[in-house]
Amino acid sequence: MSPIKASPDQVDQFLQEYVLWTIKNGRLHRQYVFKNFVQAFGFMTQVAFLAERADHHPEWLNAYNKVTIDLITHDVQGITERDFDLVRKIEALQYPIK
Amino acid sequence: MSPIKASPDQVDQFLQEYVLWTIKNGRLHRQYVFKNFVQAFGFMTQVAFLAERADHHPEWLNAYNKVTIDLITHDVQGITERDFDLVRKIEALQYPIK
Amino acid sequence: MSPIKASPDQVDQFLQEYVLWTIKNGRLHRQYVFKNFVQAFGFMTQVAFLAERADHHPEWLNAYNKVTIDLITHDVQGITERDFDLVRKIEALQYPIK
Amino acid sequence: MSPIKASPDQVDQFLQEYVLWTIKNGRLHRQYVFKNFVQAFGFMTQVAFLAERADHHPEWLNAYNKVTIDLITHDVQGITERDFDLVRKIEALQYPIK
Repeated sequence: MSPIKASPDQVDQFLQEYVLWTIKNGRLHRQYVFKNFVQAFGFMTQVAFLAERADHHPEWLNAYNKVTIDLITHDVQGITERDFDLVRKIEALQYPIK
Repeated sequence: MSPIKASPDQVDQFLQEYVLWTIKNGRLHRQYVFKNFVQAFGFMTQVAFLAERADHHPEWLNAYNKVTIDLITHDVQGITERDFDLVRKIEALQYPIK
Repeated sequence: MSPIKASPDQVDQFLQEYVLWTIKNGRLHRQYVFKNFVQAFGFMTQVAFLAERADHHPEWLNAYNKVTIDLITHDVQGITERDFDLVRKIEALQYPIK
Repeated sequence: MSPIKASPDQVDQFLQEYVLWTIKNGRLHRQYVFKNFVQAFGFMTQVAFLAERADHHPEWLNAYNKVTIDLITHDVQGITERDFDLVRKIEALQYPIK
């Protein structure tokens, strides 16, 4: 069973709660800035566990202390509850921020 | 002491040895494809150690089983021995490839 | 629903297939030796993903290039299919061995 | 050049500053407790980077949310500045604690 694409209203409501996330190229998008590479990669490792456990993986890039995460549900070419849920879990991590 | 920018000839010679690497946007560039996310992130973890120990970090992105690495030496806005050396160390890892 | 404790015969049969594993202190036990710390921790990262996804975690220790894994199902204070299954997944990783 | 074994007074002084560390079996020793496995392994990943960069590695074990670290300098079969320094770096990590 494929997840259902979120409506524009549902996306808006989500972004009001998670204000550091935006929509970029049709994806849920956020950049994180850490103190250094070790802190950035420590965060990535935790996100990687969440993603693997949810079987839902980000498109993400890292350059030294910066980590950029993009989320989309490829099955429906749009944003779904699976993306919202991964954001919630990522944001619930108590990672050290710069 | 800043590292010295490699000459076009030195870059060419390097690419002849590491044939899966190319120049893209002025950076040493390669994409790796793994069996799955776990293998991809296991590889990334090993590269992260090499990078941190060398104090020279990649710009890289991951999407499920794909890892793309870009290397440049920001101090000289070009490719240097530090980039060559990190490639050599990455390629010396015996990681499982798809 | 708790998993069922494996019978001595089932354990024996399993150990005949996975000959580098033994029983030690009532746990499925194996030591791995890698080339260096980076390879060892790269392996650990992959095992950590398998464990988290299975929601079944090892007791393990690391000293430089050595990783020792012990598995038991705490709910039944014995070895169960959950332990066998995690061993199968770990052994299916194509990690580089010394 | 080998590092020099710390005197009992130097060790005592260190333990007064890092009160959650003790001496156990001739090693600097501490147990950390995290919220869950993901937080524990995220912490381990950061420590692994510090260790690899210092070329000084712990003997450590993990069971779910618990991480136990033991440090000794094998060259001199005792505790040295290298161990003190790794503790300082580990304790400077801002990891989330239960």
